[in-house]
Amino acid sequence: MKFKAIIHIMPRPEILDPQGKATLHGLHNLGFSQVEQVRIGKQVEITVEADDAESARASLEEACRKLLANPVIEQFRFELTEA
Amino acid sequence: MKFKAIIHIMPRPEILDPQGKATLHGLHNLGFSQVEQVRIGKQVEITVEADDAESARASLEEACRKLLANPVIEQFRFELTEA
Repeated sequence: MKFKAIIHIMPRPEILDPQGKATLHGLHNLGFSQVEQVRIGKQVEITVEADDAESARASLEEACRKLLANPVIEQFRFELTEA
Repeated sequence: MKFKAIIHIMPRPEILDPQGKATLHGLHNLGFSQVEQVRIGKQVEITVEADDAESARASLEEACRKLLANPVIEQFRFELTEA
């Protein structure tokens, strides 16, 4: 079975996000003064072959921890759908 | 009123995604041979002050087009919730 996952990876709330801060300043400079906070993360779309949803979920968890996210400074969650 | 938006920015389907390709190879090298496709985009979380949802939506659209996304190679969508 084929599964499609959308993985959301964001900097942990207690971690400073310099990319978000820079973008916030950029938006203010462009006149978007009503923007108050910006945090920037990654979105990864993955297609994976697995026997069932449970094993797809397990290998995605491992892939996130080993390569896609840095668990020290980032948190991740994903949505899994059958493709 | 304060609104929170989650903006999803992905490379357009017809555009090559070298970051996704490199990550796919990385996953294969780590033993995740069941992964078939990877595409990588950005996720931006924004807090914005606006009179109503409509004006929040309008300024977010403009911010995406002017700074956050590159409409030539990326597509974006966002979810807006009252904060």
